[in-house]
Amino acid sequence: MAEFPLKHVYEAQQFDRNLLDTVFQVADDMKRDMEEGGRRYGQALAGRIMASLFYEPSTRTRFSFEAAMLRLGGSIITTENAREFSSAAKGESLYDSTRIMNGYADIIVMRHHEAGSAEKAAQVSAAPVINAGDGAGQHPTQALLDLYTIKDHFAEVNKLKVAMVGDLKYGRTVRSLSYLLTKYSGIQIFFVSPSVCRMESDIKGYLDKEGVPWEEGTDLDSVLPRVDCVYMTRIQRERFIVPEDYDQAVGKYILTPEKVMKMKADAIIMHPLPRLNEIPQAVDADPRAHYFEQAQNGLYIRMALLCLLLNAA
Amino acid sequence: MAEFPLKHVYEAQQFDRNLLDTVFQVADDMKRDMEEGGRRYGQALAGRIMASLFYEPSTRTRFSFEAAMLRLGGSIITTENAREFSSAAKGESLYDSTRIMNGYADIIVMRHHEAGSAEKAAQVSAAPVINAGDGAGQHPTQALLDLYTIKDHFAEVNKLKVAMVGDLKYGRTVRSLSYLLTKYSGIQIFFVSPSVCRMESDIKGYLDKEGVPWEEGTDLDSVLPRVDCVYMTRIQRERFIVPEDYDQAVGKYILTPEKVMKMKADAIIMHPLPRLNEIPQAVDADPRAHYFEQAQNGLYIRMALLCLLLNAA
Amino acid sequence: MAEFPLKHVYEAQQFDRNLLDTVFQVADDMKRDMEEGGRRYGQALAGRIMASLFYEPSTRTRFSFEAAMLRLGGSIITTENAREFSSAAKGESLYDSTRIMNGYADIIVMRHHEAGSAEKAAQVSAAPVINAGDGAGQHPTQALLDLYTIKDHFAEVNKLKVAMVGDLKYGRTVRSLSYLLTKYSGIQIFFVSPSVCRMESDIKGYLDKEGVPWEEGTDLDSVLPRVDCVYMTRIQRERFIVPEDYDQAVGKYILTPEKVMKMKADAIIMHPLPRLNEIPQAVDADPRAHYFEQAQNGLYIRMALLCLLLNAA
Repeated sequence: MAEFPLKHVYEAQQFDRNLLDTVFQVADDMKRDMEEGGRRYGQALAGRIMASLFYEPSTRTRFSFEAAMLRLGGSIITTENAREFSSAAKGESLYDSTRIMNGYADIIVMRHHEAGSAEKAAQVSAAPVINAGDGAGQHPTQALLDLYTIKDHFAEVNKLKVAMVGDLKYGRTVRSLSYLLTKYSGIQIFFVSPSVCRMESDIKGYLDKEGVPWEEGTDLDSVLPRVDCVYMTRIQRERFIVPEDYDQAVGKYILTPEKVMKMKADAIIMHPLPRLNEIPQAVDADPRAHYFEQAQNGLYIRMALLCLLLNAA
Repeated sequence: MAEFPLKHVYEAQQFDRNLLDTVFQVADDMKRDMEEGGRRYGQALAGRIMASLFYEPSTRTRFSFEAAMLRLGGSIITTENAREFSSAAKGESLYDSTRIMNGYADIIVMRHHEAGSAEKAAQVSAAPVINAGDGAGQHPTQALLDLYTIKDHFAEVNKLKVAMVGDLKYGRTVRSLSYLLTKYSGIQIFFVSPSVCRMESDIKGYLDKEGVPWEEGTDLDSVLPRVDCVYMTRIQRERFIVPEDYDQAVGKYILTPEKVMKMKADAIIMHPLPRLNEIPQAVDADPRAHYFEQAQNGLYIRMALLCLLLNAA
Repeated sequence: MAEFPLKHVYEAQQFDRNLLDTVFQVADDMKRDMEEGGRRYGQALAGRIMASLFYEPSTRTRFSFEAAMLRLGGSIITTENAREFSSAAKGESLYDSTRIMNGYADIIVMRHHEAGSAEKAAQVSAAPVINAGDGAGQHPTQALLDLYTIKDHFAEVNKLKVAMVGDLKYGRTVRSLSYLLTKYSGIQIFFVSPSVCRMESDIKGYLDKEGVPWEEGTDLDSVLPRVDCVYMTRIQRERFIVPEDYDQAVGKYILTPEKVMKMKADAIIMHPLPRLNEIPQAVDADPRAHYFEQAQNGLYIRMALLCLLLNAA
């Protein structure tokens, strides 16, 4: 039985190095057990109900959580229509919705369009709440699965060099990953983006405070040979005032097979998915491509959290 | 094994005093069993399928039924999109939809926008049909859980004084509760509402016929000290022609902590939820506040009905 | 353990006579086992997850597949909102969606608005893919359940005379059924339709090539006494340029009780459902009416395919 002091998971900042180690170790257990047919954990949550309370649709994230619950023998009540909870009521509070859900479910997975909603729900919920993304706010399970994918491949996170590429200003994932990497030693981070979507100064300031060296630039090619991990993200047209700037920028940040050849042999390519054209399909066969495995790792991380929060790990 | 003569549940009028006693006793069993980890009933409906056939969304009601089915070990097929059944077909009858559902599910929970739909479906369904609300018509499981909440608290329903407050004209719940209270003796009912949303004369006539004394008025304060149960409901702005009338009315029917102090010490406050501002959150901590427990009781009532209709109680 | 060489099911053309026999035999097993309480197959797919990936709603088909999976002890993740997969991503490929689903589910049931999608998904999916209808393309499980209903009633398909009535030009079901009937000997087919929605020449050519005699006409009454099976379909107003033509046509193809009396005593009436007025409700009580049984047979066919594809039959 793993020790787990958290009652809810609403933001990446709840995780210190010890907690990360615990979650990743349980995720390892889950992965191994799944490969062996679920003998140990296949009924770990039998009789428990998870509510997927999605105030906006996110089929991919919802499926990942629901598959995790089902793989553990639990069951599910689900909606991608949770706004109706309040619209029907013309203004029911998240507080009331959460308290009512406590009567139905043992654990709540919440996706919301407003930042901070999951934490607010957690404050009044007797059942554990897991944040499955709240607007411009947090998406902590994505952050955990990103870091887990790195750890899973390299065994050791310390001393790795990580490039984050694309839209670093609006991307939740790269912000959270940067934050979590400070828990390890000897890390170096390279921010590569068009100048209109640079990483914000709050994260940079935090890296400075934690003593994590970082560099910033617009040129991907020069960074590729130097790093162990290239974390790609989508660049969105809306960020650019001048369309020509977009057209020019977007081409620079496509990780073509030619660019992949500049990477170290044992480096890895990550992407939170969905992707557009920033990683061509031709790259998928490269052994460095780890983005589908990364998506798969979301299952193990979510299984681990469900078990830990429900004291079944 | 409890005796249960009903094949379907589509309206509150199907329940006489004996049936109410049966349902409430099984609900008591369910509640106790849930608190003990579901040893007795946790697999009572294993292998059975419940179809949630919702022609309009009602996440709260749907979740309550689905959690009930899952707690009993059953499984679920679900849609909040059942209108598509007929729209795709450009006019398939409820009759056909119901007969087809009989091929898939062992029990059907139906929410429909037209009054009378559940009863119509029941007439042609081999599988039990439970009405989860049909338009301006019936919502019998809500009526049962309301009455069960009263019985659960007071042990005995006879001789209770019940106030119903707010929109009594359009509120399904207060109409059905008034009806069911006639099954008990010594009941007194107080209708408190703005004059534009008074209880309709059909219910009042029925109470007269059954010998249940009732009073009607617009003043909440004078009623509060006299009753054992205050059943609050939402007042909707649309009911008022003159906006100022609404503004004036709505304030009168807010059950503030000050008003709660006028209630008897062992009285209870109920509300079908969702609430707006008619019960401020500050009242939630008062031991008389029973509305979240009332929502929770919906689970036990629905578990009881599922078991009784499927001969598993 | 039945031999089953298919990894995916995306079109009726994958099925030769041997495969049809295998599927129908397993469907027979499923039907018998269901009638006996599911002792043999009730846990056949325990621990397996089926993803219902519907890019457009089709509650009926979805419920049929999901009930099949649940009856086999499996579990389900489901969406009728799968377009969001790609719309959120502003263009994610079916390829990526499918690969990600492989991380969550053991088998994928896909409904798509574009012909050919299921086969495309199958090409990149490690998990079996079943086509639950792709636009104007294929709906192979419907074709199988249609043929199974004929076989189930007559025991032997060879030598049957089958009439197909209504919109034969746009109807997927009659096209696929015609194709599959060529796998049997001594078949005769009668196409009965308004001249604007005649069976297309590709199917007629295929019947000629396979040596299956067919006739074509507009008169239903003369065909009814000659056939063993009358397969009715909806005629859609949109097919007609002149509204009066529609009004005249539609009346000719209503299978009234009077017309049913012209049929052989042991013939059967089929319809893929939903129906409009082409079969009046008064016909339902006739022993020749088999359309609700046909819908029910969909359950057994889908249970059979799920088991065969997951090597559990």
